[in-house]
Amino acid sequence: MIQQPFVVTFDPKTGFSDDAPKPISQRRLSNMRNMFLDEAARAAMEESENALVYEFFEMGIPDLATELAFGTSICYPGKVGEEFFMTKGHFHEVFDCAETYICLSGKGIMLMETPDGKWAAPVLTPGKMVYVPGGWAHRSVNIGSEPFVTFFNFRGDAGHDYATIEEKGYRKLVVERGGKVEIVDNPRWK
Amino acid sequence: MIQQPFVVTFDPKTGFSDDAPKPISQRRLSNMRNMFLDEAARAAMEESENALVYEFFEMGIPDLATELAFGTSICYPGKVGEEFFMTKGHFHEVFDCAETYICLSGKGIMLMETPDGKWAAPVLTPGKMVYVPGGWAHRSVNIGSEPFVTFFNFRGDAGHDYATIEEKGYRKLVVERGGKVEIVDNPRWK
Repeated sequence: MIQQPFVVTFDPKTGFSDDAPKPISQRRLSNMRNMFLDEAARAAMEESENALVYEFFEMGIPDLATELAFGTSICYPGKVGEEFFMTKGHFHEVFDCAETYICLSGKGIMLMETPDGKWAAPVLTPGKMVYVPGGWAHRSVNIGSEPFVTFFNFRGDAGHDYATIEEKGYRKLVVERGGKVEIVDNPRWK
Repeated sequence: MIQQPFVVTFDPKTGFSDDAPKPISQRRLSNMRNMFLDEAARAAMEESENALVYEFFEMGIPDLATELAFGTSICYPGKVGEEFFMTKGHFHEVFDCAETYICLSGKGIMLMETPDGKWAAPVLTPGKMVYVPGGWAHRSVNIGSEPFVTFFNFRGDAGHDYATIEEKGYRKLVVERGGKVEIVDNPRWK
């Protein structure tokens, strides 16, 4: 377990930290095949620019139930077709473990859903935090024009299950239609 | 356990939240008898104004190991004699549980120590977070001129042990001497 206190400095605007272990975890359009509804648009964007969709700064906390994993998540502004840039989203391996996210800058939605069909999509701006209960998949979606930056905490041993979402997708999508942000059904959800 | 996601809004400058259950937990000078070195100065200040030393906004999360307790802590600027305003400080009842604090505004020190005599006193300003490992008592100390506001997270069942500090005190004090912030030994430590 961790024996000694330590301080980590984050830029509260960008979410960057020089204290995080390198390399930083980055997800580009090439890392997100088949995760957006309009796969053809994503593939064309990957071909032309392969933009950075999101990145996160984590500290490599030991995976023990007494520790707390933490870091910042930065989701960049952009769209694939009508769908906003987002993170892959995950459940926790220790399924019942909760997670907190406090928004440090930007504007986004925490898109959440359960295996039995409940969902929620609250908007976060600086000072708002969301409590993601155990058993809820969660994904950050940037609906603004600046980076959407959150500071997150979860139990050290909670782990990540990305595979379920990669396979099944999300029931809901966050899209822009007629200049408005809308939550719509995912026609490709399995 | 918590079944439904929820959003809590904090003012990132003041730490206040209209979403927190009332009454808010407040600690005035009258709640901190014998916690500052200069007890006579504290008693005189209690008599004249009984200033608010700190308060915290918590959500009443169920005390389960899968949940995360969170909230904001606001320590106000001020001194008792040469000693800066501070929180009582605590260990966790589940002794090995860690806690994270990210500074939202102001300037303070997280004063930490272990039963076997280790100590640490890092300075926090906005964007800096401190990892308080399991087994370390921790206390917020305001060394600035504005409220020192932090957002904290700890495991839902970690609990608080205030009694040890109330009885023994801290080994170290944070004082102002000659216009400088200094960490000094506590002559009254038991």
